[in-house]
Amino acid sequence: MLEVIRGLSKKTDSKIVLVVLDGVGGLPLETNGETELATAKTPNMDALAKDSQLGLIELVGAGITPGSGPGHLSLFGYDPIKFTVGRGALSAVGIGVKLNAGDVAVRGNFATLGEGRIVKDRRAGRPSDEKNVEIVSKLKAAIPEIDGTPVEIYTESEHRFVVVFRSTGTPLGANVSDVDPQETGVQPLTAQALDAASEKTAALVNAFVARAEEALRDETQVNGALFRGYSDVPHFPSYADVYQLKSACIASYPMYKGLASLVGMDVLDVPGEEDAMEEKMQVLRDNWDKYDFFYLHSKKTDSTGEDGNFAAKVKKIELFDSLLPQILALNPDVIAIVGDHSTPSKLASHSWHPVPFLLKSNYGRKDLAQRYTEEEAGKGSLGLRKGTDIMPLLMANALKLQKYGA
Amino acid sequence: MLEVIRGLSKKTDSKIVLVVLDGVGGLPLETNGETELATAKTPNMDALAKDSQLGLIELVGAGITPGSGPGHLSLFGYDPIKFTVGRGALSAVGIGVKLNAGDVAVRGNFATLGEGRIVKDRRAGRPSDEKNVEIVSKLKAAIPEIDGTPVEIYTESEHRFVVVFRSTGTPLGANVSDVDPQETGVQPLTAQALDAASEKTAALVNAFVARAEEALRDETQVNGALFRGYSDVPHFPSYADVYQLKSACIASYPMYKGLASLVGMDVLDVPGEEDAMEEKMQVLRDNWDKYDFFYLHSKKTDSTGEDGNFAAKVKKIELFDSLLPQILALNPDVIAIVGDHSTPSKLASHSWHPVPFLLKSNYGRKDLAQRYTEEEAGKGSLGLRKGTDIMPLLMANALKLQKYGA
Repeated sequence: MLEVIRGLSKKTDSKIVLVVLDGVGGLPLETNGETELATAKTPNMDALAKDSQLGLIELVGAGITPGSGPGHLSLFGYDPIKFTVGRGALSAVGIGVKLNAGDVAVRGNFATLGEGRIVKDRRAGRPSDEKNVEIVSKLKAAIPEIDGTPVEIYTESEHRFVVVFRSTGTPLGANVSDVDPQETGVQPLTAQALDAASEKTAALVNAFVARAEEALRDETQVNGALFRGYSDVPHFPSYADVYQLKSACIASYPMYKGLASLVGMDVLDVPGEEDAMEEKMQVLRDNWDKYDFFYLHSKKTDSTGEDGNFAAKVKKIELFDSLLPQILALNPDVIAIVGDHSTPSKLASHSWHPVPFLLKSNYGRKDLAQRYTEEEAGKGSLGLRKGTDIMPLLMANALKLQKYGA
Repeated sequence: MLEVIRGLSKKTDSKIVLVVLDGVGGLPLETNGETELATAKTPNMDALAKDSQLGLIELVGAGITPGSGPGHLSLFGYDPIKFTVGRGALSAVGIGVKLNAGDVAVRGNFATLGEGRIVKDRRAGRPSDEKNVEIVSKLKAAIPEIDGTPVEIYTESEHRFVVVFRSTGTPLGANVSDVDPQETGVQPLTAQALDAASEKTAALVNAFVARAEEALRDETQVNGALFRGYSDVPHFPSYADVYQLKSACIASYPMYKGLASLVGMDVLDVPGEEDAMEEKMQVLRDNWDKYDFFYLHSKKTDSTGEDGNFAAKVKKIELFDSLLPQILALNPDVIAIVGDHSTPSKLASHSWHPVPFLLKSNYGRKDLAQRYTEEEAGKGSLGLRKGTDIMPLLMANALKLQKYGA
């Protein structure tokens, strides 16, 4: 379908804003009660909904709880079963590290090794983030490069870290076996290249493991490095190529900026701390003339759901509602509001429930849905759809898709 | 998608009950009238529906009338276009014959042969079931084995019978051409092996045909055997493998027990005659602690529809409604009610109409549907879906599916 859309897309002056309220779908705390969205006072979204078309979206499939990666790829129009991001690359993306063609990103765990290199704890007793930063500093000093290949080492959290081997010519292969034995009481495994292109990578990995153990030999708990999940840079057809769009990402958290950059969006700087929703409005205004597609991300609707804090999630929804008039004042040709998955406070985690989808353009039909809530969206004329339907609908409503066939 | 679900499934203590009211979907007798479900008095299903999520299900596809096999496979999560059961195997399953790896089941028709083995009637004048049993007895006595291969012969109904060739070592191939010429006025065809592995099977088939004609030479009407549809045992990924479920089938009729056993469910004994719905409740209670998934089947909702008996179908729906509290008393984490296809009394046959689907768990949203009927289910928040969405939804609602991607 992406190929069909690519063949139909055309450049026009119309502007699209895709607002992603992360994890916005919810659940009532009690049977037949109201969700976070239905509880929130949202006069601006209510007014918009009355003039919009609504529906419900499944990002990956029935019953499937999407991670942030697959959820966003689906919103961006890429089938999340077909287009996947490896764990190493997703970790790199999640901490804001840009991968280039030929590089390999590896997901690492710090471990505790005992006598004879026997793995005693695969997570090194889950060290604090501060301890992780301290260990990473030691490793950076000890292993700036291996045989001429630049090595970058990043803290992820607790026992997790990421290593990026930067290619200096021939691309590094990512088809390498794990160092992590997935059990204790045995030695770490020796990485093996699983194809010829990955032989250099396997050698780099094994050299890294040896030099890390040497550098950490005075540590008692965090004294080994295990690897699993090697990824080269995922290559997705870009927004410019598929949709003929000059597209911008307005987000604060590294994961979402990284996912947007994977599909070729320009990632705009957002000043301010944490979610910085007010600042994002200013960034949108400042860049309004420069782009024809804006992906605008709100994180806190998800984080509050993950915390199981129903009232706080309601407040974050209301915060966005208060800012919505600033977007509408720019008079976008198409505006859509959706989530990348549900995060019901009741579950304190991502969930499989469909997310409400609102689409406003000059070319909509009348619709029974009167609010941007799960229940009302279920009455909407757009029906229950998959996430990859969203981009074609936005493009069509912006009159950016040509007729298919004569 | 089955592979995705397999990768996400995890074992937990939660329990799922999937009630299949065979053929439950119906039609009004007159335009804008009420269906069997809407006519039935169903206070217990009504109360459950008010706390549940509803939708409509197409088991195979738009406009497609499912047979019992594809309808059930779809409910069980197996794409019925991809996963098929050969006619020979489905006939064997339908009469309760278990096939083992290496066996071949063949669907046979009794025929009337005239002078020079010319086929005069491909269905032998549609003999009575009693005559079929008498002929099968003769054949059993005459052909207990062929060259050391055990031969089993079973009555299906009228002119239809099933032969099972039991493998005694090397698996028997099922790639054999038909004996049935599909027309009269010609001789039966000689079976040909279409691959090397099926040569022994073709020889067995031809020997069977000759020995059957010899054994039936004193018969005037039922004196020949035609074959078409050869199947080895269908191999489906099991419920234990795909869903990590310990699953049980509570059904009375061979076809449904056979289909459940094909996907690896334990088939529980149900005492009593015919549909034995009351007895099934006792079997459910007796086995409640031993399984985490129960498939509970009601046959008579279909048979009454097949008979074109609207009032009788209403009664069978009401019978199930009266038993529903016994299931709810066990407090399942997830209960679903659905059909494997519609069987409107008006058509007196299976039909293509979507079936209503009810899903109750602790993780549902409010829903407009107020009864378990076709019309109300059409208002439900689960929307119009395909049959293979059901198992992922049941698994998700039982919190038995992990997140997809990070």
